Amino acid sequence: MKLNLNADLGESFGAWSMGADEALLPIVDSANIACGFHAGDPLVMRTTVRTALASGTTLGAHPAFPDLQGFGRRKMHVSPDELEALLIYQIAALAGMAQAEGGRITHVKPHGALNNMACEDAMLADAVARAVRAFDRSLILLAPATSELATAGERAGLPVALEVFADRAYTPRGTLVPRSQPGAVLHDPAECIAHVRRLLAAGGLVALDGTVLPTPIHSICVHGDNLEAVDTARALRAALEADGHVMVGLPDMI
Amino acid sequence: MKLNLNADLGESFGAWSMGADEALLPIVDSANIACGFHAGDPLVMRTTVRTALASGTTLGAHPAFPDLQGFGRRKMHVSPDELEALLIYQIAALAGMAQAEGGRITHVKPHGALNNMACEDAMLADAVARAVRAFDRSLILLAPATSELATAGERAGLPVALEVFADRAYTPRGTLVPRSQPGAVLHDPAECIAHVRRLLAAGGLVALDGTVLPTPIHSICVHGDNLEAVDTARALRAALEADGHVMVGLPDMI
Amino acid sequence: MKLNLNADLGESFGAWSMGADEALLPIVDSANIACGFHAGDPLVMRTTVRTALASGTTLGAHPAFPDLQGFGRRKMHVSPDELEALLIYQIAALAGMAQAEGGRITHVKPHGALNNMACEDAMLADAVARAVRAFDRSLILLAPATSELATAGERAGLPVALEVFADRAYTPRGTLVPRSQPGAVLHDPAECIAHVRRLLAAGGLVALDGTVLPTPIHSICVHGDNLEAVDTARALRAALEADGHVMVGLPDMI
Amino acid sequence: MKLNLNADLGESFGAWSMGADEALLPIVDSANIACGFHAGDPLVMRTTVRTALASGTTLGAHPAFPDLQGFGRRKMHVSPDELEALLIYQIAALAGMAQAEGGRITHVKPHGALNNMACEDAMLADAVARAVRAFDRSLILLAPATSELATAGERAGLPVALEVFADRAYTPRGTLVPRSQPGAVLHDPAECIAHVRRLLAAGGLVALDGTVLPTPIHSICVHGDNLEAVDTARALRAALEADGHVMVGLPDMI
Repeated sequence: MKLNLNADLGESFGAWSMGADEALLPIVDSANIACGFHAGDPLVMRTTVRTALASGTTLGAHPAFPDLQGFGRRKMHVSPDELEALLIYQIAALAGMAQAEGGRITHVKPHGALNNMACEDAMLADAVARAVRAFDRSLILLAPATSELATAGERAGLPVALEVFADRAYTPRGTLVPRSQPGAVLHDPAECIAHVRRLLAAGGLVALDGTVLPTPIHSICVHGDNLEAVDTARALRAALEADGHVMVGLPDMI
Repeated sequence: MKLNLNADLGESFGAWSMGADEALLPIVDSANIACGFHAGDPLVMRTTVRTALASGTTLGAHPAFPDLQGFGRRKMHVSPDELEALLIYQIAALAGMAQAEGGRITHVKPHGALNNMACEDAMLADAVARAVRAFDRSLILLAPATSELATAGERAGLPVALEVFADRAYTPRGTLVPRSQPGAVLHDPAECIAHVRRLLAAGGLVALDGTVLPTPIHSICVHGDNLEAVDTARALRAALEADGHVMVGLPDMI
Repeated sequence: MKLNLNADLGESFGAWSMGADEALLPIVDSANIACGFHAGDPLVMRTTVRTALASGTTLGAHPAFPDLQGFGRRKMHVSPDELEALLIYQIAALAGMAQAEGGRITHVKPHGALNNMACEDAMLADAVARAVRAFDRSLILLAPATSELATAGERAGLPVALEVFADRAYTPRGTLVPRSQPGAVLHDPAECIAHVRRLLAAGGLVALDGTVLPTPIHSICVHGDNLEAVDTARALRAALEADGHVMVGLPDMI
Repeated sequence: MKLNLNADLGESFGAWSMGADEALLPIVDSANIACGFHAGDPLVMRTTVRTALASGTTLGAHPAFPDLQGFGRRKMHVSPDELEALLIYQIAALAGMAQAEGGRITHVKPHGALNNMACEDAMLADAVARAVRAFDRSLILLAPATSELATAGERAGLPVALEVFADRAYTPRGTLVPRSQPGAVLHDPAECIAHVRRLLAAGGLVALDGTVLPTPIHSICVHGDNLEAVDTARALRAALEADGHVMVGLPDMI
C-alpha cells in the first residue's frame, strides 16, 4: 500500500523565479531538483536542497540537456559518451550540494526532452543508466512505467522506481498522448484523482482506449508550476491517503 | 625533503584544444583540473580524470568564475553566498567524475581571477574555504604561500598546501609582480630552476628586492601551455630530484 | 516642455517570464530592450520589438555584461576592446531585430553593473561611446544626468539624452544613494511624483541634503517589474501631462 | 568562367584558437564568419571582419544552433519561430560588426548541423530563408547545390549561390556521402582538384556511382582547419585559375 508522489523543483534561475516550491514541498515525498543545465543555478540548487531536506522530502537529481534557453525541452542529438559525461557532471553537482547541506540524493530522473528521448531509444536509455551506475550504483532511477528507460535501468542493475503521470493520458503503447491531441492533459483535480485511482486499481497503465499495460507503479508525478497545480497535487495526496496508501520517500518504495 | 609539482590540466573545451596534457602528466605530481566554468566540459573532465588517474597523478578541482569567454581571467564581483554555491557545484562535479572513474579528488585550487581576488580579499577567501569545508573538510586547499587564501584555509581548519610559482617574481608583500613590469615572468628554464632553488634555500618567498618572507613551501606550480613550458617543467623536476627532493602527491605533503 | 519616459523591457528569457511589459508599453515613450546577454533571448527580443513598435514606443538597445545568471548586475572587469565588441554585437543584434520588424532603434542605454561602472569610470564610458559611434553615430546615448557616461557620449559627438530616476534619491555628487541606506528608494507613487517634480523645477538633480546639480533632464526612468510599479509609472505620466509636459519619444527630445 | 572559393573563418573563441585564418584569407574569395553561437566571440568576430575586409574577401554570416560545446555540430530541434529569431540575431550581430568596421556582409551560410538539417527539411529551410529575407532581402543565401535549402532560398526570392565541396563525395541523391563510408572524404590535394574539375566539366554534381545531377555551381567550399588544408585550398585555386576561371567574391557571381 506504499506509494510516492514526486515533482520537479528548483527550476528558478538567477533573477527569474519559477514554480511554487514552498507550497509544493510539504505535499510531495520526493523532489527532482534541476541541476543547472536546463534550470537551477548553484545558489538555487543549494537553497532548494536545504528547503527540501528541512521538509523531509527525499532528493533526486533532475539532469537535462545543456539548453537553458529551451528549458531542456528541445531534442538534442548527443553522443552516448557525451551524454554519460553530461549526466555524471549534473548528478554529482547536485549530490555535492546535498552533501554540503548534510544530506544525500537517493534518485535520478532525467528531464524534458532527454527523458522523452530515453524512454523511446534504448541506446540513449543505456547511456543514462551507465551514467547513474558509474556515479553511484545505489541511486534509484525514477523512470516512466513501461519505458525503455526503465528497462535500461533494470538491465544495468540499478534500483528502478516506476512512475505514472497524474495528469496525462496514455496511448495503448504506454507512451503519453501528445499534448496536441484532445484529452491528452487532465486539468481538473477530480479527473486527475480518478485517473490515478484507475491506474492503481488496474495494476498498470490504462490507455485512452481502455487497453491495460500491467506494471508496478511506485510513484505518481505531479506538478507545481502554479498554485492551481499545487491544489491538484494536495487533493490527490489527500485522496490517496484516504484510500489507505502510505506515502513514503522513494528509498522506502524500492 | 618532500616536494610537489602541480599544474593546471583539462583546459580544452568542446572542439577547442588547449595545453600539452599528455606531455605534462608524467612530470607533475598533482593536477588542477578545470571544472567547466572557465574551461573543461564534462567529456574533457572525464577524459582528463581518467588519464591523470592512469598516470598516478593526484587530482584537484580547479574551480573558477562562470566565464568561459574570458577563461576565468576577468574579475567578477560575486556575493559570498553565490561564490560558495558556485564552488561547491564545480568541486562536486569534478569529484563525481573522479568517483565515476574509480578515483577521488584530494585538493582544490581556485583558478585565475578568482584565485587572485581570494589571495587579497579575506572575505572572498573565507567563502572559498567555507565551500571546500562544506563539501568535504578533508580536501587540501592549495593556496599561494603568504596569501589571504592560505590564511582563510587555516582559519577554516582545512589542510592547506602552500605553493610558489616557478616562473614568477615576487614583490616584498608576497604578491606576484604584475606581468606588465620587467622581470615579472621568468622565461628561461635555468632561471626558473635558480628561482625555485633560491626560495627553497631561503625557506620562504624571496622578492625581487631580496626581501625574504619565511613560509613553508609544499608545492611548485608549473605550466603546460606549450611544449616549451613542458620542457621547463621537466628540467625543474630533474633539478629538484637531483637536489635530493622526493616528489610526492599533495596528500603526502600535508 | 517636452519630456520622455523610458523603461527596461523584454527581460524574460526562455521559459522564464519577467516584467509587466504589456501593461507598461502604453505608458512609456521609449523602451530599453534587453539584448540577450543579461536577459532576453532572440525570440523574446523579436516579440518585444514587435509589440513596442505596434504601441508607437521608440526602441533602444539595452546591452549588458555577458552574465545571464547574475542578470548583468555583477561587476565584471572587461578590457575596453572586449567591451566595445560586446556592445556592438548586442546593439547590432537588437537593431537587426527591429529591421526585421520594419522598424529601427534610436537609442542605446547600458544595463545594470555596466551602466553603473560606466557612470563612474571615464575609460569604460569612452569604450561604451566608441561602440555606439562605431555602429551608428546617429544613435542617442541615454545616460544618467551628470555621469561620466553622459560626458563620454558628448566627447564622442553622440547625441546624448540625460535621464533621472523616478524612484531613487541622489547624493550631493549626483550618484544614486546606495540601496542599503534609508531613503534610497522611493516606494510611494506620490513620493515619486513629488521627487520628479522637484528635479524638474530645480532644473537639475536635487540631492537628499538639498544640494542642486544643474543639468538638462530629457527622460525619466520608470520600472515595470510588477503591477505596482506600473501603477506608479502611470500615475507619474498622468501627473507630468497634467503639468503641461508633452511626452515624446527620445528622438523628439534631442 | 567566374567562380568563387568560400571557407569558414573566425572559429576561435576566447582563449582558444582554431583555424589558419591568416593563411587562408588570401586564398578564398568569400568568408563565412562564425557569429558567436557555435564559435567566435564578439572580439574574434570583429578581428576577423577587420582582417577579411583588409584582404578584400567578401563577408558572410555563418550562423548556427546555440551550441558552443558541440561546435554547432549536434542536431537540435528548434521551432521555426525560434530558428528565425536565432538567425536574425546572429546575422545582424555580424552585419553590425562589419558596419562598425566600415564594411558590409553580402551573404549568409548556415553552419554545421543546422545546415545539414536545412538541406533535407523544407520547413527548416524555409525558416532559414525567411530569417535572411526578414533581415535583408539583398543578402545572398549560400547553399549546397540541389539542397532543400537552395530551393527554399529561391522560393523566398533571395539571390542564391550554389556551392559544392572540394573534398566530399556525393550520393546519387545529391547529398554528401556520410563520413563513415569509404571514399566519403578526399584527402589528397590532387584528388580534390580532380573532383572539382569533374563537377565543373559535368555541369553538376557527380555521384560516386557516376550519376550526374545537373546544377549551376557558383562556389567551391574549402577548409582551413590546418596548414595542410590551406595547402589544398591554395593548390585548388591555382588549378582553377590555370583552367581560366576568374575568381570573384560572391556578389559578382550572382
